[in-house]
Amino acid sequence: MRMRSNEKSGKGMSNGRAVNGFLLDITGVLYNSIYKSDGVAIAKSAEAVDFLYKHSNVKFLSNAKGNSNRNVARRLQRLGINVREEDVITPAPVVAQYCREHKLRPHLFVREDVLQYFDGIDTSSPNCVVMGEVEEGFSFERINRAFRVLIDMPKPLLITMGNGKFFQRVDGPCIDVGAFAAALKFSTNCEVLNIGKPSRFYFEQGINALGMKPEEIVMVGDDLMSDVGGAQACGMRGIQVRTGKWRPDFEKLPVTPDLTADCLYDAVKLIADNGFRL
Amino acid sequence: MRMRSNEKSGKGMSNGRAVNGFLLDITGVLYNSIYKSDGVAIAKSAEAVDFLYKHSNVKFLSNAKGNSNRNVARRLQRLGINVREEDVITPAPVVAQYCREHKLRPHLFVREDVLQYFDGIDTSSPNCVVMGEVEEGFSFERINRAFRVLIDMPKPLLITMGNGKFFQRVDGPCIDVGAFAAALKFSTNCEVLNIGKPSRFYFEQGINALGMKPEEIVMVGDDLMSDVGGAQACGMRGIQVRTGKWRPDFEKLPVTPDLTADCLYDAVKLIADNGFRL
Repeated sequence: MRMRSNEKSGKGMSNGRAVNGFLLDITGVLYNSIYKSDGVAIAKSAEAVDFLYKHSNVKFLSNAKGNSNRNVARRLQRLGINVREEDVITPAPVVAQYCREHKLRPHLFVREDVLQYFDGIDTSSPNCVVMGEVEEGFSFERINRAFRVLIDMPKPLLITMGNGKFFQRVDGPCIDVGAFAAALKFSTNCEVLNIGKPSRFYFEQGINALGMKPEEIVMVGDDLMSDVGGAQACGMRGIQVRTGKWRPDFEKLPVTPDLTADCLYDAVKLIADNGFRL
Repeated sequence: MRMRSNEKSGKGMSNGRAVNGFLLDITGVLYNSIYKSDGVAIAKSAEAVDFLYKHSNVKFLSNAKGNSNRNVARRLQRLGINVREEDVITPAPVVAQYCREHKLRPHLFVREDVLQYFDGIDTSSPNCVVMGEVEEGFSFERINRAFRVLIDMPKPLLITMGNGKFFQRVDGPCIDVGAFAAALKFSTNCEVLNIGKPSRFYFEQGINALGMKPEEIVMVGDDLMSDVGGAQACGMRGIQVRTGKWRPDFEKLPVTPDLTADCLYDAVKLIADNGFRL
């Protein structure tokens, strides 16, 4: 791509509105996940990230719920994608902060690696359930424990780290935490609070981290409804990439991306070549 | 109870309509289940069953999905409750018959003990999922396999053995298969066909087994919505017992039983003493 930053781009030479910041989804945009391994980098995503660090502003807004921000960043670094830990946003620390601010005592149905964020939070006699577990740590016994906590509450509250229908692994699509939130809602009639995309509250974490107005930001994701539609609902522009969980039948869904590109690199190149306008 | 059969009861001496047959739920009515054990008989349910075999007509209509009819009957017999295998109705054989009649090729997400009912049914390139698995055989991997089968179908069909919110074990309530049907529906937008109470098709199995009109039959169950409400919707009378999963807050729910009794024995005694009328 041509190394032209937004500072250098003249207004007259390009169309569209200025793009001053990028929020990037991680899984399916930077890399594809493989069960119990680091996964594989998506072609040229490393170059795209380097370029954005150099010529624009970038944060990473993921619904990844299984690892700490440190381990998310380290995994990407092992794949050659130089994402800085401090630029990674995942639901677990946001949920923990929400629990602190709202004096919630969560029953934690989460991965071991994110338990650290809940240090110091009272988890005795829980008044909500926090769920962010799928794959190897998921079991009937664990969802049943969450069910029993909820069924005993007068006003059951389930906080879920993302509300996705499925996530994409290299071996195929996998049922995601949103399905198990629907399961618990079916059986307990709980309120479900999603702290993850596409909730506005969660997108605001990314907007605030970039420190700019939503209309200056583009969100790049592989999930049309959650990434693209969610970003648009918050006043950002939403870019669909044809990687990760993208499927041709997304075109039948009721969200129209501001841009569709084959991959992150292509999206960044197109915007940069247009003087950081879209 | 007074040993008075319906033949002996004079019309003038009692109120209500004739009761010529009983459909009994099993778990929570005859016995309470304990994880990985036979469970415990509910007081006097054995006497009530003996009495009904002697003085009326009785079949057992259960949503139990983990065991063959033979093993359901044997378990009850070990608890001293003399239920005959041929009088037990559970979803698995009914689902298998449905698959045969509709030329369905199921992906089987069921317990090992009920696989025998599907002998001879083609399960290659499945065009539906049959689900009847909770507790020890449930895993992320297995529900994910069911998810992948459904997500690949143009018109995904999930047949579920019962659609309950929870079942009751002695150690507490447990999230039931209805929740996981809701999960799969959330993620795949599948059609959900419940072959189990409260579906009319399933109640008809019990009605046909008794060989009488719905209005001659009472259904006795511990689940207000599924057993009692479901039976009433089919033209039977529905009796709620205060055993199993019964909870005081059932009174807030929008179904009114034709009779509420502390246990099966009390319900049978009251009806028998009233000349088999209710």
